[in-house]
Amino acid sequence: MTQEPESESQSTGPRKALVVVNTGNGKGKTTAALGVLFRAWGRGLNVCMLQFIKSTTSNYGENRAAKKIGMEIVALGGGFTWLSKDIEKDKALAHDLWEQCKQRIASGDYDVVALDEFTYPLAYGWLPTSEVIDFLKTRPPRTHVIITGRDAPQELIDYADLVTEMREVKHPFQQGLKAQPGIEF
Amino acid sequence: MTQEPESESQSTGPRKALVVVNTGNGKGKTTAALGVLFRAWGRGLNVCMLQFIKSTTSNYGENRAAKKIGMEIVALGGGFTWLSKDIEKDKALAHDLWEQCKQRIASGDYDVVALDEFTYPLAYGWLPTSEVIDFLKTRPPRTHVIITGRDAPQELIDYADLVTEMREVKHPFQQGLKAQPGIEF
Repeated sequence: MTQEPESESQSTGPRKALVVVNTGNGKGKTTAALGVLFRAWGRGLNVCMLQFIKSTTSNYGENRAAKKIGMEIVALGGGFTWLSKDIEKDKALAHDLWEQCKQRIASGDYDVVALDEFTYPLAYGWLPTSEVIDFLKTRPPRTHVIITGRDAPQELIDYADLVTEMREVKHPFQQGLKAQPGIEF
Repeated sequence: MTQEPESESQSTGPRKALVVVNTGNGKGKTTAALGVLFRAWGRGLNVCMLQFIKSTTSNYGENRAAKKIGMEIVALGGGFTWLSKDIEKDKALAHDLWEQCKQRIASGDYDVVALDEFTYPLAYGWLPTSEVIDFLKTRPPRTHVIITGRDAPQELIDYADLVTEMREVKHPFQQGLKAQPGIEF
């Protein structure tokens, strides 16, 4: 039968912390990152998720779950929704939020840091992708970084170790169904 | 900026339990299902994952995490690896495992049931997809069902409410890296 890549985990080769990108227009980008954090937490690793987009009701499920188990999920923007029409303001904010991420990653305290919806400041040009990559190259060797969001820049894809495109094949909004609590958010 | 579907959660429309399919050759099918279960568990919902493929080391992370929080993850096959060359035996086993799934789904006890790697018995013709769909149509209205695995049959995709293809863009095995504990399994 079809072999999943997981079954190759016995293969030999160097270990290194990965840069993982979940992109594409489909569901599951953030959710898969959340699954990785949950799995890593199960192994006793130190994990956190830093969210670039304002928390909405869509985050209640994971926030409640994370709170229950003491997993760190931090809304960096503090309610900022990136709706400013002032490009300089957006750039300044993007840099400020990125500084917060850098501090956490550089601390060496974390095994896995997820930068949720971080592709947007990159795709919108508020933060140079090359600057982000230069920093990631210098990060502590134990720290995996997961980046989620649509429209991941090609430069980031080229640099990353593991890239998955979540492609929407069918979505319930097409049937006029509203998002279902507990399963979609 | 690009709007995620989540932001449409305020839209009106009927609520119903969904059939969700995570398919494709990329990472994140099981992991996203796990993220949904974690999120739903955060809302106090009753969830379980039923695994069709033998647990390998790749499952240690999620099994440990699930055990810590009392989430049910059940390896149905009990070590069976689907390597039999006896098609009749495979069919009998697939039906037996499916009966176990049906009982749990039909119990009405669960808000979300994930059938992990369930596409394989369907894709291999050991279990008729039409029979599965007929059962799903009669399931308790509260119970969301998530099905993961490569090669989801078109008939299942046509029936499902939400289908995402996880497409492999880049995989670390291409660089000769072995799977990294905590992040990939």
